[in-house]
Amino acid sequence: MALVLDSAAQDLLFREARTANTFTEEPVSDEQVQAIYDLVKYGPTAFNQSPLRVTLIRSDEARERLCGHMAEGNQPKTRTAPLVAVLSYHLDFHERLPELLPHAPHIKDAVFSEESVRESAGSLNATLQAAYFLIGVRAAGLAAGPMTGFDADGVNKEFFGDGRQRVLMVVNIGKPGPDAWFPRSPRLSYDDVVTVL
Amino acid sequence: MALVLDSAAQDLLFREARTANTFTEEPVSDEQVQAIYDLVKYGPTAFNQSPLRVTLIRSDEARERLCGHMAEGNQPKTRTAPLVAVLSYHLDFHERLPELLPHAPHIKDAVFSEESVRESAGSLNATLQAAYFLIGVRAAGLAAGPMTGFDADGVNKEFFGDGRQRVLMVVNIGKPGPDAWFPRSPRLSYDDVVTVL
Repeated sequence: MALVLDSAAQDLLFREARTANTFTEEPVSDEQVQAIYDLVKYGPTAFNQSPLRVTLIRSDEARERLCGHMAEGNQPKTRTAPLVAVLSYHLDFHERLPELLPHAPHIKDAVFSEESVRESAGSLNATLQAAYFLIGVRAAGLAAGPMTGFDADGVNKEFFGDGRQRVLMVVNIGKPGPDAWFPRSPRLSYDDVVTVL
Repeated sequence: MALVLDSAAQDLLFREARTANTFTEEPVSDEQVQAIYDLVKYGPTAFNQSPLRVTLIRSDEARERLCGHMAEGNQPKTRTAPLVAVLSYHLDFHERLPELLPHAPHIKDAVFSEESVRESAGSLNATLQAAYFLIGVRAAGLAAGPMTGFDADGVNKEFFGDGRQRVLMVVNIGKPGPDAWFPRSPRLSYDDVVTVL
């Protein structure tokens, strides 16, 4: 056995977990989201920069505002999922670095004084955190439906009017409903993906 | 209990796992990397595009070529880690889409005909896959040391001379050695990160 993680956990997080396109009406509680966050917050980011921010869409009004910016094919599921999370990164994540990196607080200014640096670092590291979040949703026994099909400028203007956050992904969350997914599509083989030098 | 994933697995993947800066000499086998890949390949990407590629640095010669492009502070650990993986995305991932998305092979041309679209989608989705890979390294009972401190143009020219792959991250892999990490740094609280609308 090359893996230490038990087989049930492998199934829960990867092998049997699927991206859901339909959901039951069973609600997703704030307690569940908090448990997800309190697990995945430990996932690594460069300099512990932690740029990810999560906007939970709970009200009908916020959901309608979001759906107007989603690609047409993503609108029905975004409208009916028990919970929708907008994942973004904060362009001023460095302001928190003295707390987040107490052994090297100078990194805030030495590395991140330029916004263009924060833009590329924040985008990459928050995308890592978005993946940890998807794994966390599965760890809660829920299905995630991550989507990148939306008008990003529209979402940014709608929800981040101060211009300091940028959307990365919108994630539907809930228990999978009827016909929630297509049959599992093939994956590239190890030899397709891995080169040994 | 808001999470379904068992507590030992939570510890292994998130709570007790740490980014390692030193490693023992215990080797990491190709069988371990294959087991990691065969688990994390199921992590979701948009349209199952699967743009991640992994270059394993096994030879002394390849390692020296890589170390020359690493930031000075990253060189000692990159030189001594049992295994180093260069994670990149392929700009022509769409060529495999007819196999990867058999129910919608038209997506290859309808969505991904322009390289600029593949660049942003490939970068984002391979970064998600990089996070799944880090989780997979931990699932194998190993520590990962992900790094973004390197000359990306230099690494691309050195290892991807055809210009069709772009490096995202370099990851040291192995069993943690002495003084492998600083004490755990604080994380942002749920209320710092999550907004409810």
